[in-house]
Amino acid sequence: MKLVLIKIGGCLITHKNSEMPKINEELMDQIAGELSEAYKELKEVSLIIIHGAGSFGHPIVKRTGIHKGIENHEQLLGFAETQRLQNELNSIFCNLLIKKGMPAIPVQASASSIMENKRLKSMDIDVIKGLLEVGMVPVLYGVPSYDLENKCSILSGDQIMTYLASRLNVKKLIFATDVEGVYSADPKKDKNAVLIERISKDNIDKLLLEGSNHTDVTGGMYGKIMEILNLGLKAQIINGAVPGNIIKALKDEKVGTIVDLK
Amino acid sequence: MKLVLIKIGGCLITHKNSEMPKINEELMDQIAGELSEAYKELKEVSLIIIHGAGSFGHPIVKRTGIHKGIENHEQLLGFAETQRLQNELNSIFCNLLIKKGMPAIPVQASASSIMENKRLKSMDIDVIKGLLEVGMVPVLYGVPSYDLENKCSILSGDQIMTYLASRLNVKKLIFATDVEGVYSADPKKDKNAVLIERISKDNIDKLLLEGSNHTDVTGGMYGKIMEILNLGLKAQIINGAVPGNIIKALKDEKVGTIVDLK
Repeated sequence: MKLVLIKIGGCLITHKNSEMPKINEELMDQIAGELSEAYKELKEVSLIIIHGAGSFGHPIVKRTGIHKGIENHEQLLGFAETQRLQNELNSIFCNLLIKKGMPAIPVQASASSIMENKRLKSMDIDVIKGLLEVGMVPVLYGVPSYDLENKCSILSGDQIMTYLASRLNVKKLIFATDVEGVYSADPKKDKNAVLIERISKDNIDKLLLEGSNHTDVTGGMYGKIMEILNLGLKAQIINGAVPGNIIKALKDEKVGTIVDLK
Repeated sequence: MKLVLIKIGGCLITHKNSEMPKINEELMDQIAGELSEAYKELKEVSLIIIHGAGSFGHPIVKRTGIHKGIENHEQLLGFAETQRLQNELNSIFCNLLIKKGMPAIPVQASASSIMENKRLKSMDIDVIKGLLEVGMVPVLYGVPSYDLENKCSILSGDQIMTYLASRLNVKKLIFATDVEGVYSADPKKDKNAVLIERISKDNIDKLLLEGSNHTDVTGGMYGKIMEILNLGLKAQIINGAVPGNIIKALKDEKVGTIVDLK
């Protein structure tokens, strides 16, 4: 089996700018459909899904400040409610996936995660390995976690992705976001920005040089690329909102930006 | 701090005989109110809550047979859906607890649990210890778990209770069910059955003798008592549906059956 990790941005399954937790029902349904379709079709692929929080996480974290630590009773309540909301979002998403035929099983990463100064120190992966062996599709998600220094910090979906990618035998990472991929410049600020379809040995030096000269020219993608490079894995960054893109990426077809340095 | 583990039976927070998952809204609200009231009042007590599944668990487990292992795709879906339903029940319960002022944080035990032939082999307790230190109230619940032998088996709330009780510095266990406590005979079959208010060194031998002669004369409580005895901890078995009982037990007041062999 070929293990693929796919991150579904919180911006895809929720209305990310809503102050209240709000599901993006249409897009969540579309994405659940593509994931389950790919699951049924690609028998040689085993999947781990990791999703973000969007409006189920960012507003409450900002309001309560729990990502900087816990200092009062209101923040204890905020910590609990933030966790609860993530489980709720996950349950709604898994419900769709299960109904569409995928054995998508919720895995609350914070039930086994110890953070230290906002970085993930340890997390159980034996259960995830076991679930994969059984034939399940583990679905993890960004969560507030116990932190040795700050009592609480945020274990993001991207951090979970990196942690798993460096400890499991992963063939490929897919990042589904709401932009087309990695650009030559910030597409929101520079109209000459073009999508980079492939990051390879041939253009990586130029890209890194530009990345170090400017602050995140790639439109928020520089940090993500650096992490992928550190892992040495094949990755694909796609716009998950465009119908068909998730299936294409899972089938290894050309879409978005492919990172492959081998 | 005095650590108390309280088990809330699934029969209290759901309509246990419903074929579909169905919350017992009134009773769940009453119990959440008592727990949060006790939390606010008893500053020297730290709590772990463990709840059962009731109609969110038993019907789907019976229907899919996943507690005996996984053999087909329908059971993979059943495994996923059973987990999802437990998270949903837990989220509804925690929502009430949080609204009533208790930092009740969901902890999905199966995210760190390895079962072996239906027994719990290992589960992360470092996160639970950490959450307690921070001042949170971890809320665990019965879940379907990865099993090394059978692929899946059920990690019951009672098993979680026993596991935690033997590994944390626990002062007392409370079992809130829908019967008054331990009886001298099965109260459903024998009208002469009387509630045993206290199980101590003085009457334990007689009780164990009777327990070994008959099949579970105590009305389903014999196994529970044996586990408590093995742990050597103080315990109280109460009817959680009777208003005030949960607070009484948390305040160490006389109600139901007290097990204390010291």
